[in-house]
Amino acid sequence: MNVILASASPRRKQILENAGFDVTVRVSDADETLPDGISPEKAVEHLAKIKANAIERKTDETVIAADTVVALDGKILGKPRDEKDAFGILSALSGKKHRVYTGVCIIYNEKEIVFSDCTEVQFYKLDENEIYDYIATGEPMDKAGAYGIQGRGCMFVKEIKGDFYNVMGLPVGKIGQKIKKML
Amino acid sequence: MNVILASASPRRKQILENAGFDVTVRVSDADETLPDGISPEKAVEHLAKIKANAIERKTDETVIAADTVVALDGKILGKPRDEKDAFGILSALSGKKHRVYTGVCIIYNEKEIVFSDCTEVQFYKLDENEIYDYIATGEPMDKAGAYGIQGRGCMFVKEIKGDFYNVMGLPVGKIGQKIKKML
Repeated sequence: MNVILASASPRRKQILENAGFDVTVRVSDADETLPDGISPEKAVEHLAKIKANAIERKTDETVIAADTVVALDGKILGKPRDEKDAFGILSALSGKKHRVYTGVCIIYNEKEIVFSDCTEVQFYKLDENEIYDYIATGEPMDKAGAYGIQGRGCMFVKEIKGDFYNVMGLPVGKIGQKIKKML
Repeated sequence: MNVILASASPRRKQILENAGFDVTVRVSDADETLPDGISPEKAVEHLAKIKANAIERKTDETVIAADTVVALDGKILGKPRDEKDAFGILSALSGKKHRVYTGVCIIYNEKEIVFSDCTEVQFYKLDENEIYDYIATGEPMDKAGAYGIQGRGCMFVKEIKGDFYNVMGLPVGKIGQKIKKML
């Protein structure tokens, strides 16, 4: 089926295409400012809803938007500002369990659904040299939590509990279930 | 680092390359017959060891071999024999939790280590049409358990507990940890 992806993330496009969707990317410059003191779930749902509603859509188009954050001890970690920030984030995640939240908004004609999914990720203990080497690859810089589980960051992950694709940025199994009920 | 992969699986090669390894594939036609009544862990460890030892290796080469099976209620499910068998396997997995075991053997000069990793996979309930459509894509036929979590099979997976890459065929994080201690 055809879907309009309201996200510029090449990873989200790839996930949907792997799953068999035909994907058209259509992005807006929606205001992604978060209200203060919002929980990770509410934050990602709020931003997904804003992104999905910010693009123009035609009748019978299915629009999917998403937002992903990493939370450690309830505190939201976004994308790193610079390499020093990436080092701080990865040091904080080392040896610990964190949570990845992706909020999704799907719009089809008059119907709109918003939900989020959470995956727990347990990191191995990282040493400083591993973190420096990883930052030198450039991989952390555009990613929430400063790592990519689909890239070299896979070496840091001991185990996950939940949907892997939710960590990459889109809980594709849950999206399939929701779309089945919606259409 | 350079590794010799004693497996023809393009997925295993891709996992190692994504993780930053330089991979040379070198396969043998090892005898993959399993002893009767063997547990899934022992089965995959046994076959990984046979595969790793069946290829020729030079001094200072690091050889990695692996074998993956799916087990439902302790019973090993291999690759489907035909489309009817694939239908039976996917119907059995529908709505249930199964386990994926990958055994790994790493050889470096005189050192050899063998281990396995297990990931639990919870499937959504599948309806017959979904299973027929999936079989028509051809994806199930060369895969243990008749699905690929990295392809359209991702839509069937509600959640996993463990390493995602172990389900794809190679527990790459654990391999990294073992190699660090070995070399």
